[in-house]
Amino acid sequence: MKNILVTNDDGVLAPGLLALAQEMRKLGKVTVLAPDRNWSGSGHVKTLDRALRVREFHLEDGSQAFGSDGAPSDCVALATLGYFKEKFDLVVSGINVGANLGHDVTYSGTVTAAMEAVIAGLPGVAVSLEVPEGYVGPIDFEASALAASIAVRNVLQHGLPVDTLLNVNVPFLKQNEIQGFRMTRQGLRVYHSRLDERVDPRGRPYYWIGGEAPTGVPESGTDVGALSDGFVSVTPLQLDLTAYRALSDVNTWDWHETVLSEASLLKASAYMADK
Amino acid sequence: MKNILVTNDDGVLAPGLLALAQEMRKLGKVTVLAPDRNWSGSGHVKTLDRALRVREFHLEDGSQAFGSDGAPSDCVALATLGYFKEKFDLVVSGINVGANLGHDVTYSGTVTAAMEAVIAGLPGVAVSLEVPEGYVGPIDFEASALAASIAVRNVLQHGLPVDTLLNVNVPFLKQNEIQGFRMTRQGLRVYHSRLDERVDPRGRPYYWIGGEAPTGVPESGTDVGALSDGFVSVTPLQLDLTAYRALSDVNTWDWHETVLSEASLLKASAYMADK
Repeated sequence: MKNILVTNDDGVLAPGLLALAQEMRKLGKVTVLAPDRNWSGSGHVKTLDRALRVREFHLEDGSQAFGSDGAPSDCVALATLGYFKEKFDLVVSGINVGANLGHDVTYSGTVTAAMEAVIAGLPGVAVSLEVPEGYVGPIDFEASALAASIAVRNVLQHGLPVDTLLNVNVPFLKQNEIQGFRMTRQGLRVYHSRLDERVDPRGRPYYWIGGEAPTGVPESGTDVGALSDGFVSVTPLQLDLTAYRALSDVNTWDWHETVLSEASLLKASAYMADK
Repeated sequence: MKNILVTNDDGVLAPGLLALAQEMRKLGKVTVLAPDRNWSGSGHVKTLDRALRVREFHLEDGSQAFGSDGAPSDCVALATLGYFKEKFDLVVSGINVGANLGHDVTYSGTVTAAMEAVIAGLPGVAVSLEVPEGYVGPIDFEASALAASIAVRNVLQHGLPVDTLLNVNVPFLKQNEIQGFRMTRQGLRVYHSRLDERVDPRGRPYYWIGGEAPTGVPESGTDVGALSDGFVSVTPLQLDLTAYRALSDVNTWDWHETVLSEASLLKASAYMADK
């Protein structure tokens, strides 16, 4: 029996978490610990400057869950550092309302929760459902829950390479319209943020980061491209961000600094990293 | 005359920011916009659920600075989306008290500020000074400010590849003890976090993420290794987190799902990303 930790960044009572938890119960013993409020766009947080609280919740189906006042990554830290007696076999985060594509991955609470799992030595899977900007109405999580199940079963069977997580994104389509899975690379997001300056009733300015929702470059082989073609994208992400191709360039730069050398401050001995 | 934006995650009045701003003024016109409080461990934040305020501050040398109630990455977003009239040529973040090595990079407000610059299409440089756990006393930023200057001058001269930032870490040594620069890859952090459960005066439990400070594996070629040998590490980081090596593995997994196929839900057509 596998022990699966379920978390998210939309908050413990979000319907996407319920759909994921229910699907995961078919695969193992499920424990839910997620933020007690929405943490979207929170990034990879490690809360060290304050203590964290954990409260018991009940999901809509009556099942037990736990909510913390920390970020999604804090929830994973709490769970893997021993809040529960269980040792977990896998962490799955979602189902997020809104895709996490391209550059979204470092902002995303959903993805950074899976990063925290990987740092704790556990396989991490992030699952997000593309929801069009401005969509209102009930969201059907059935296809995305099934996609999560397929991804998680694969990870439980094969494991993931060290330092790697899976970022799964599901298009906003009915199940019979989904074309299948594509293994993808991280694509390019195009952000349309603009600053929206307003003035408060006391005459002082304040600023919203506003603008249209981000779009993406639907290039073939990318997560953005897969969704745009009606496929579920599965992008393996690594926590090694080294720009290996840039290393040799940077190494040709002049790291001898006359000013510094004259002052015998820094000896220049740039050398190429051995990897 | 280059326009340089200086930010940090220790807060606008931190001495490390002052040292960096003063050094950068030798290279161009400096604008300071940084969080009005400490944001360490904040991750890559995009604040969309509340408006941001900006206030004027003065640094210890009397120079003008701006402080916002957003995260370091929000400060970069404010600056690049038009809070200032200037178009910036480069964003530099620091000097952080404490190294940002290995897996620290996705947690680090210092590094994620530089990520935000890159997403805005600007070169980003993050500068951190290793400070030993438990060190008290004044911190000498002279060597780290000079290292920042060398890195920034190189970036202004050569540019950085698309989607790439520089993560500079300086050892806690006197200038004449620093051995020079090493171009490195991201090393391995070893976290020693443990959960510290306490009980409040009302008898309710709360939890600190505690434990010893992280250490690292001082492997040759890595940031951790360079600092341990007395060198400044310069690690180019990229925002493409795709685990390219894992892609082909993941592609061999069975993404045909009998249950789903029977229900004609998801057609399996996993294919290798074309990169």
